[in-house]
Amino acid sequence: MDLRARLTRLLGAENLKFSAEDTARYLTDHRRLYTGKALAVAMPRDVPQVSALLAWCNDAGIGVVPQGGNTGYCGGATPDESGTQVVLSLERLARIRSVDADAQTMVAEAGCVLAQVQGAAASAGCLFPLSLGSEGSCQIGGNLATNAGGTAVLRYGMTRDLTLGLEAVLADGSVVSNLSGLRKDNTGYDLTGLLVGSEGTLGVITAACLKLYPQPRSRACAWIALRDARAAVELLAGLRGALGDRVTTCELVPHVALELVLRHIPEARDPGLSPAAWYLLVEVTAVEEADLDASLERVLAAAAERGIVLDAALARSERQREDFWRLRESVPEAQRAAGGSLKHDVSVPVARVPELIERGAAHVATLAPEGFLVAYGHAGDGNLHFNVNQRPGADAAAFRSRESALKRAIHDLVAEMGGSFSAEHGIGRLKVEELERYAAPSELAAMRAIKHALDPRGILNPGKVLRAARERP
Amino acid sequence: MDLRARLTRLLGAENLKFSAEDTARYLTDHRRLYTGKALAVAMPRDVPQVSALLAWCNDAGIGVVPQGGNTGYCGGATPDESGTQVVLSLERLARIRSVDADAQTMVAEAGCVLAQVQGAAASAGCLFPLSLGSEGSCQIGGNLATNAGGTAVLRYGMTRDLTLGLEAVLADGSVVSNLSGLRKDNTGYDLTGLLVGSEGTLGVITAACLKLYPQPRSRACAWIALRDARAAVELLAGLRGALGDRVTTCELVPHVALELVLRHIPEARDPGLSPAAWYLLVEVTAVEEADLDASLERVLAAAAERGIVLDAALARSERQREDFWRLRESVPEAQRAAGGSLKHDVSVPVARVPELIERGAAHVATLAPEGFLVAYGHAGDGNLHFNVNQRPGADAAAFRSRESALKRAIHDLVAEMGGSFSAEHGIGRLKVEELERYAAPSELAAMRAIKHALDPRGILNPGKVLRAARERP
Repeated sequence: MDLRARLTRLLGAENLKFSAEDTARYLTDHRRLYTGKALAVAMPRDVPQVSALLAWCNDAGIGVVPQGGNTGYCGGATPDESGTQVVLSLERLARIRSVDADAQTMVAEAGCVLAQVQGAAASAGCLFPLSLGSEGSCQIGGNLATNAGGTAVLRYGMTRDLTLGLEAVLADGSVVSNLSGLRKDNTGYDLTGLLVGSEGTLGVITAACLKLYPQPRSRACAWIALRDARAAVELLAGLRGALGDRVTTCELVPHVALELVLRHIPEARDPGLSPAAWYLLVEVTAVEEADLDASLERVLAAAAERGIVLDAALARSERQREDFWRLRESVPEAQRAAGGSLKHDVSVPVARVPELIERGAAHVATLAPEGFLVAYGHAGDGNLHFNVNQRPGADAAAFRSRESALKRAIHDLVAEMGGSFSAEHGIGRLKVEELERYAAPSELAAMRAIKHALDPRGILNPGKVLRAARERP
Repeated sequence: MDLRARLTRLLGAENLKFSAEDTARYLTDHRRLYTGKALAVAMPRDVPQVSALLAWCNDAGIGVVPQGGNTGYCGGATPDESGTQVVLSLERLARIRSVDADAQTMVAEAGCVLAQVQGAAASAGCLFPLSLGSEGSCQIGGNLATNAGGTAVLRYGMTRDLTLGLEAVLADGSVVSNLSGLRKDNTGYDLTGLLVGSEGTLGVITAACLKLYPQPRSRACAWIALRDARAAVELLAGLRGALGDRVTTCELVPHVALELVLRHIPEARDPGLSPAAWYLLVEVTAVEEADLDASLERVLAAAAERGIVLDAALARSERQREDFWRLRESVPEAQRAAGGSLKHDVSVPVARVPELIERGAAHVATLAPEGFLVAYGHAGDGNLHFNVNQRPGADAAAFRSRESALKRAIHDLVAEMGGSFSAEHGIGRLKVEELERYAAPSELAAMRAIKHALDPRGILNPGKVLRAARERP
């Protein structure tokens, strides 16, 4: 009996896709960097089916590629070109199992779309704070597997920080489960934290117990024109000094990105500030009733006096707030509309963001003259999407040929600055060699030992994060 | 050459203790449950010495028992009785390497006393929020190794949540280091989170990059007489609904504990409330200037109207605040002064704390008639120290003989309630069999695989957290 027939006997034909037409959308990543082949796309309906599939694949030595909303930036959910791997889509495990407003916890299955998780929390009067551009299609299982970041990390942390426990299937089909939502539980090693961010290479997350927070009752939002990039760091310090953890969002947008957005995104509205090289989107929230507009205005007025802030607009309505957010959230789409781009998802200590911009810009000018820098993102966390767009009319092939040298220069720069070449997007397939280059040999050895311990046959997302010894040069 | 001579050649005589007199205090745990023997107590002065020691012990197959302030409750830092293990004291690695108020980070070596870490943060105008009874003598390395909890977990999380990165020496002497303080760094597996809470069984933590927070400018503190234990949960919900994360501390103290404290602690001052079976110590803080007394009073007044709160006193001075805190912090000392006790460090979902108290009390009455319940602690996190003190005049041997049956009943109860038999104190040596009993076989297998992967010769804190296969029955 061939493998597909055996898989069909295991899971049922209704839970498998084989045809080119049915499987196509599972075989190419969001950025279209990779297109693979697969033995099958499996869509189990419950945890026992996931367990049965993994046990069978482990016995047969068949690679399994877990996939959520397939919105990742690093090819972590795409099978290789061999056609021997099984894509394991979690999309049918899409139930919110429970929401407990008193305990401030929710148990959600891996296939729940992030917006669905946010909505279930809101229906219970709570907040699930993870928020990112793809929230309408990414799945919480993928957010967990990649330890997703987003626009509220400053206040609430990364996905790992929002996770109280997991249910996951290990390589041999055994299930580990810790969904009780305890706030304190020191019983052995932190398997939850280890699985979060392991990109499906140590286990397949099937559900999570997530932390909820009280919904803010007060909110203020401003679009701010800055003196320069350094002003972003100074203003953030002032905001946090005055408002502490009420500062939820601090996103940096360069003028060039605002221009792209206004040009390419029909719904985008110019906030009408005096032009500046850099803008900041700031949001401040509080659980209690508070006049946050007044608090935010005070900080901005003081910053304006010191020359840090050139101009600022406070959102006076929910609609205006959405307008400000659209300017930030539309940058990736505007970049796509504007043509090819080279992307770097990097972080440095927050205070060094301006230095990163300055020194990185010099590399762009030298190494990618066909491009222009569009560095934007989560300045409050020290994380910039240090992207470079092709200049209009420039030669596309020449521009693309710059990728490798520019990547090396930018990644070397952040390494020298104590930063990271992968702040929030993960390693996937795209950055395996970068990890080998920049991680210390002792750390790589420890990671490889853990990988081998939990997945001795190497069936879990092969070639992602870490390569097997035989694949390394 | 014998082992001690070889050790002396490796580290120098000035960094080793051999004599019974010099080593005694390293060989007995804080609770005097265990007294071991040691080949030597090693006190390395720097990371290369720690590395050299581990590499040598790994080659020689010699067990290493890392030790911090030796204040643990589970015997995790005590060597066994064989006399073949080396105690590795981190006390000479006691330097604050850096404090960065702008980045809100600090790099502290493992041997820094927690109070020293708190003080270094305060000197820079920041807060390091980890706070626990033994903060004057416990060391941050031990806090990290045990993922310590304490009285501010409600607001700031456990030690793992306060850790941005580690420097640690692995079993083979290799060093992993991630002290750059990045807020976002998705480059491979979370070795930091894995090492935190692993109690020295996966690596020896030598330094950590810790998260700092802005120092609160406003604070309110109250000692509250409750209708009953259930009222604690209701009041906490009200407090968090009104004040969100400004609620920093929510500690439950039964009347019987207050009585013990007033009887045995000379400095203790009766807050003078109408007597109640249960009291709550609540503290609320804010970064900004705010009238938190008024906010707290509003919530308490509303709770009093609903009959949840019987009486309450707000601290009107720093001295009165310290008085309230002393009542809570002195419970362990008062318990010790009152005689023998049986301890359980358990957690349940917060809403089930009253049920735990009720059902647990019934077990105490039945299974330990020579004792009385003193259940107190971190109600806001669902974590109670479910302790039982010997009644005055009761037979001590009879009381002690109840330990095993009572432990089984309490731990079975919390397991049935979705709770944990080890909330914040860890496993150490004391709870190895409990972990084997209550953890799922799949989780134990995963933990053992990780242990074997990172410490294949089993030299790191042997017999703690997990037993080697040959030691299991």
